[in-house]
Amino acid sequence: MYKNKGLEVLRLGIDSHQERIVYLNADCHVVQSEGFTSHSRVCVDTGIESIIASVNITHNGLVTSDQAAFSEAAWRALGLKGGERVMIKHAKPVNSMSHVRSKLYGGKLDYPACLEIVSDIQSGQYSDIQLSSFVSACTADRLSNEETLALTRSMIDVGERISWDQPLVMDKHCVGGLPGNRTTPIVVAIVAACGLIMPKTSSRAITSPAGTADTMEVLTNVELTQEKMQQVVAQEGACLAWGGSVSLSPADDIIIRIERALNLDSEGQLVASVLSKKVAAGSTHVLIDIPVGPTAKVRSFEQARKLEDKLVKTGKALGLEVLVHRSDGSQPVGRGIGPALEARDILSVLKNHSSAPVDLRDRAVYLAGLMLEMAGVVDSGAGVLKAQEVLDSGEAYQKFIAICETQGGLKEIPKSSHQVDHLASCSGIVTHFNNRCLAQLARLAGAPNSKVAGVELLVRLGDRVEKGQPLFRIHANAKGEMEYALDFLAQHSDCCQVSGETV
Amino acid sequence: MYKNKGLEVLRLGIDSHQERIVYLNADCHVVQSEGFTSHSRVCVDTGIESIIASVNITHNGLVTSDQAAFSEAAWRALGLKGGERVMIKHAKPVNSMSHVRSKLYGGKLDYPACLEIVSDIQSGQYSDIQLSSFVSACTADRLSNEETLALTRSMIDVGERISWDQPLVMDKHCVGGLPGNRTTPIVVAIVAACGLIMPKTSSRAITSPAGTADTMEVLTNVELTQEKMQQVVAQEGACLAWGGSVSLSPADDIIIRIERALNLDSEGQLVASVLSKKVAAGSTHVLIDIPVGPTAKVRSFEQARKLEDKLVKTGKALGLEVLVHRSDGSQPVGRGIGPALEARDILSVLKNHSSAPVDLRDRAVYLAGLMLEMAGVVDSGAGVLKAQEVLDSGEAYQKFIAICETQGGLKEIPKSSHQVDHLASCSGIVTHFNNRCLAQLARLAGAPNSKVAGVELLVRLGDRVEKGQPLFRIHANAKGEMEYALDFLAQHSDCCQVSGETV
Repeated sequence: MYKNKGLEVLRLGIDSHQERIVYLNADCHVVQSEGFTSHSRVCVDTGIESIIASVNITHNGLVTSDQAAFSEAAWRALGLKGGERVMIKHAKPVNSMSHVRSKLYGGKLDYPACLEIVSDIQSGQYSDIQLSSFVSACTADRLSNEETLALTRSMIDVGERISWDQPLVMDKHCVGGLPGNRTTPIVVAIVAACGLIMPKTSSRAITSPAGTADTMEVLTNVELTQEKMQQVVAQEGACLAWGGSVSLSPADDIIIRIERALNLDSEGQLVASVLSKKVAAGSTHVLIDIPVGPTAKVRSFEQARKLEDKLVKTGKALGLEVLVHRSDGSQPVGRGIGPALEARDILSVLKNHSSAPVDLRDRAVYLAGLMLEMAGVVDSGAGVLKAQEVLDSGEAYQKFIAICETQGGLKEIPKSSHQVDHLASCSGIVTHFNNRCLAQLARLAGAPNSKVAGVELLVRLGDRVEKGQPLFRIHANAKGEMEYALDFLAQHSDCCQVSGETV
Repeated sequence: MYKNKGLEVLRLGIDSHQERIVYLNADCHVVQSEGFTSHSRVCVDTGIESIIASVNITHNGLVTSDQAAFSEAAWRALGLKGGERVMIKHAKPVNSMSHVRSKLYGGKLDYPACLEIVSDIQSGQYSDIQLSSFVSACTADRLSNEETLALTRSMIDVGERISWDQPLVMDKHCVGGLPGNRTTPIVVAIVAACGLIMPKTSSRAITSPAGTADTMEVLTNVELTQEKMQQVVAQEGACLAWGGSVSLSPADDIIIRIERALNLDSEGQLVASVLSKKVAAGSTHVLIDIPVGPTAKVRSFEQARKLEDKLVKTGKALGLEVLVHRSDGSQPVGRGIGPALEARDILSVLKNHSSAPVDLRDRAVYLAGLMLEMAGVVDSGAGVLKAQEVLDSGEAYQKFIAICETQGGLKEIPKSSHQVDHLASCSGIVTHFNNRCLAQLARLAGAPNSKVAGVELLVRLGDRVEKGQPLFRIHANAKGEMEYALDFLAQHSDCCQVSGETV
């Protein structure tokens, strides 16, 4: 291969998100000898580390012709400190893209193809444009059960895998789409208080205003190393960690970023994302909650049934016991939508506050009960009573606090600086919540990036309200975001509908 | 809407290709009040122009907290000169992406949906990630005839449209996939020499080493304004211009950039791309050449037939007469693959050099003959003879030179600085050319960005060669690119196969 003399590294301090960019002067000898243009994909080599990056050409003194400047993601990936020199050459074409093209043309993805794709994604070889094409190729119901299994296996195989040396390792997951449905921390606390092992790892939000990891981060540290995670579980029987920080199914977080930008969350990739994390985390028994409702992510029982089939079959092929529970997805759960607001609901349930949201409590108790039965802790049918008992006695709360303390300490829940109440425009009965609109409202207000942002529901379906009564409260930490949310609300009056009475 | 005080503009001189990026300091008040992070999509407003851009956050003194710095594409789109102040707020979600998602989920794209998508693409509202999803959603045969027509119409309707006040306006197009098949300039010269009107606009290369616009740019200026184009056609009856410079179907060039990055070129988008440019250019009669061969873009007659059907039907619905010719796509045409090498072949045919490639000449004459018959200049069956006559007499050459002179002058064809010959490893007969490998070889050598780069074929199918005899010559203008091409060649010995004789 052609060798150039190397360029001096420069840190520009530009955060281009996960994209790895190298900025080169138009007059640089490497640019000229290699014929680089903006968007060329190149291989940057320090002699110790090498990465694939995209070129941006600069036309003034920002970068000299003897320098190679890097975006923050590229700088970190190369492990640079400053003072190094790097060699830059053309990157080889990403061969696994031929599998993506073949899939777009109606071909099938087998395990070797998936492994090549997922390995290349994990090692940063895919540009955002290529990632988006892969996500689009696999979206909707385009992946068969065999392809879903192949993708799941490959996502497991490129990451780390934890072993617990336990016959029963419990896990639960909610496919999402129902704002505020944050049962997981409560279920973990109950199940662990009953002596079961539940090393829970969660994702951050994809298209929702909060994922369990976003919400738990309000209460404690969730970025645990694998060692720290094992220490927490050894001590408390459970943890509540962010999956990405322990390198379980690492390609998943890269794919999730693109799904978020596209507001797409496909069936096959959903199954692969969920089950790859479970298997890599060493789980043996997984309970999956699928909320079904007209404005939830899963809208019909037919759709839920297809998803259940894919989850159970893929799980079985991977040696995982999967139980699916389909729940009511007609309205948000609890009062809060957004990390901090949801964290407040969770604590109030665990503390048995009289004001705790009953629906969140009931759902968590029911799911925990199913898990206790699944694990054989109680006889079939006796799970709910046992779960109720552990919650009422305060054992679940104590277990939750112990987990948070072991993970790095319980944090104070922060409060938002801006609040605006949305009022009923007439008297009547609350007849409809649009989950999607409420979720988008919370996102526009800043959730999940702003922890305190979101929507706080002040009424429930079927409540009688008076004209001018607050229906929900928008929380934001930036004036611009609040204005943006209000702007959206003005155009989407069906977030919460009140059917007027004839007086 | 929330108003901020505005930020001073700064030109960083970073060329991020077509992507519009605004670089903001992490401490900037707008970043904090609006809650921007890297990859936020924002609206930047100068008071006169406004654009959608992606945010990159900077963490040092590169950009001060009172400044907004811009990539070159963003700077140009805003028409900045320096000294202006801009307002920045969250961009509204791109509503037309819901149509892209719906298409991915199996829905159909109608005209209003296509128009929304194409308008948003043209006005720069789509990020690269969103563009890639749209291209992937429409790839392969995913667009029905109705959808293809809707997409074509919308691509016409967002751009300019030329009217010629002529009953017959001729055009031709090759769907590509056959390296070196550069008949268009010769056909235009012959047809125009016969007195027909042929205002030819061409694209740059998508996935090939050269498009007609890339090749013509070696010989003359192809970036004509619409006024200049009309002046050239009024004077010479024809022109050979780059389509993008006259704003005909402007969304096409944005889409093409993404197709190139993905190495994807889909059927529906191909039809929309070709026919939208033809209708916008005011053509009435279009001849379309589809080379068919095992390693051409179209590999089977079945595939060619489907494409023909889509082209003819869509053309008819748009009031365009479309004639499709299926040609032999088994080996490259002419000797050169790459802009300058192909330009050399074209001139040698037009000048009736004894060494001119016969296959290129024959194809051009045949296609020109079909056009003369289609236009009624000669009777059916007499086209080829007439075309031959005009070429032999030098009238076609004179017409070609006149067109180049009127467009801005005939240029000298540049020569490459690096050449390497690839030799036959045994004696025998040349039995196979792999068009795809040869095209990729030419691209790796630098074509089309480097005009002189490419591959020069020294033998044809069926030729008898001796061991050590040169089969083809690689041309490059950068040592790195030559090494890269040779590296690829070492792994792809089937670019040109010689079947050895038993001596």
